[in-house]
Amino acid sequence: MAEGTAWLAVDWGTSNLRVWGMRADGTAAFMRTSDQGMGKLAPDQFAGVLAALVADELAQREAPLDAWICGMAGARQGWVEAPYLDAPADLGSLAYAAVRPPASGHFIAPRILPGVCQKPAGIEDVMRGEETQILGLNALVPSLAGLVILPGTHAKWVRVDGRRIERFATSMTGELFEVLRAHSVLRLSLGGEIDGAGRNEGFAAGLAAGIESPARLPSLLFKVRAGALLSGRQPDWSAGYLSGLLIGAEVGGQRDWIDTGASDVPLVGSPGLCGLYQQGLALLGVASHIVDAADATLAGLRLARELAA
Amino acid sequence: MAEGTAWLAVDWGTSNLRVWGMRADGTAAFMRTSDQGMGKLAPDQFAGVLAALVADELAQREAPLDAWICGMAGARQGWVEAPYLDAPADLGSLAYAAVRPPASGHFIAPRILPGVCQKPAGIEDVMRGEETQILGLNALVPSLAGLVILPGTHAKWVRVDGRRIERFATSMTGELFEVLRAHSVLRLSLGGEIDGAGRNEGFAAGLAAGIESPARLPSLLFKVRAGALLSGRQPDWSAGYLSGLLIGAEVGGQRDWIDTGASDVPLVGSPGLCGLYQQGLALLGVASHIVDAADATLAGLRLARELAA
Repeated sequence: MAEGTAWLAVDWGTSNLRVWGMRADGTAAFMRTSDQGMGKLAPDQFAGVLAALVADELAQREAPLDAWICGMAGARQGWVEAPYLDAPADLGSLAYAAVRPPASGHFIAPRILPGVCQKPAGIEDVMRGEETQILGLNALVPSLAGLVILPGTHAKWVRVDGRRIERFATSMTGELFEVLRAHSVLRLSLGGEIDGAGRNEGFAAGLAAGIESPARLPSLLFKVRAGALLSGRQPDWSAGYLSGLLIGAEVGGQRDWIDTGASDVPLVGSPGLCGLYQQGLALLGVASHIVDAADATLAGLRLARELAA
Repeated sequence: MAEGTAWLAVDWGTSNLRVWGMRADGTAAFMRTSDQGMGKLAPDQFAGVLAALVADELAQREAPLDAWICGMAGARQGWVEAPYLDAPADLGSLAYAAVRPPASGHFIAPRILPGVCQKPAGIEDVMRGEETQILGLNALVPSLAGLVILPGTHAKWVRVDGRRIERFATSMTGELFEVLRAHSVLRLSLGGEIDGAGRNEGFAAGLAAGIESPARLPSLLFKVRAGALLSGRQPDWSAGYLSGLLIGAEVGGQRDWIDTGASDVPLVGSPGLCGLYQQGLALLGVASHIVDAADATLAGLRLARELAA
């Protein structure tokens, strides 16, 4: 048992679960992960999975351990549904809108934060988890205002003003890469070693093509196959090209979301993926900086808890 | 045995094989299909598969039966490779560039037509089969010149001047629909009945959105999921929307390929799919007419054979 665990910070995604034991001073005493993501669980299994992951912390306690949870645990198919806040949304109210699952017999007091939705027809969109990262970004980035990009399986572009989400859009960029790589004819050009030396060169070529002609994405995609057949492109180059093309088309197709003279766009996600977006923004002359997704999530859960106190 | 079969017209695709028995006057005596597409066969199996499909025609013959073949049988992984013609390409030379597979012991004399490639880096592209349809279109459409669209799994946009292919581009539209429907998160909104009454309405909405904002495709795709979650869109509407969005983005992103004042763009493919493209072109004020893919293929094989005589 870690000394002085005051509460649990929980990021419960579709595929994975991550739990931090938090001290009263806001630092993390430990972090644990599990593959028991929302997608694998029935509603009555969540409490037991979380309790098992921190069983040593629950022993010898006198009061239930608070757990602040963000992500897909609050989806309709999750633990218990935490209805979305409507965008434009004030993230200061995330904690108040948190949902408490029914008592489970485990010595945990869980609170699940809501996601944010955007309802108007034609721009319908949803997020669960990113809103907590954006709340946390307020503790990490002074005077947060303007565009925030959160690269990932479903990349989010979010117009933010402090704790307020003005509007947002989700691009299926990461998932497009995966389904095309695994299930389309492009797989024939992507078999074998895809992390070789040609990957960076292919990425640069795809990125430039996507940014220049985002509206041509459906035909540029086929260049992955035709380039292998005609120009002898190897799998590493082709994988880089596909990745660059998709990120380039995302960035190029939404360049009107980028403020004129934007000084420093925050990129929230895994540092490796964020670095690829950073290259894309640089082609447009836009500076950016990377914030690790876990840091933002933790800061967001901490701030949500403080705001509820 | 059909009376008077003078030669065989063969369309050998990746998934299927279609054979017509042709009379000397150019009419078809019979048509037979098989699921023995190129993707299922090793090089030494092609001759036997074709001979078995027309075994009754081969009996009692005194000379081998000519077979004119287009499509993936000529791919590197096919029967025998028929190297691509380079675009710009004169389709009048398709027959001269045809490749004869080695003797197989079957009483057939096969000739495999080449495909067409476009080699310059950045616009690399390939076709196999569509070139034969475009040659055939010359027999079906007087004074063929301008844009021809061939919708399908890999839709081709081709700039044509008579029998000459000037340039072309392949959009992965049909395959994108299939892999997203089957393998992405969008499948959660597309389960169940997708051919219901809402399909046309969803198609119209997606088509308009794709044509208006082709560069926004990566984020518009996510509207399929968000619309189901927030607006109660049913699977038939969502499937129509996805189909319309992809076709709309293809058409909208390549509108500069369409001649100003184009009078009547030929659409070559299945009539149902071509009808969807026709709706898209109509939104841009462009008239089009549908040519059944099989009619074009047959006309192309017939013309190739005549040009070789």
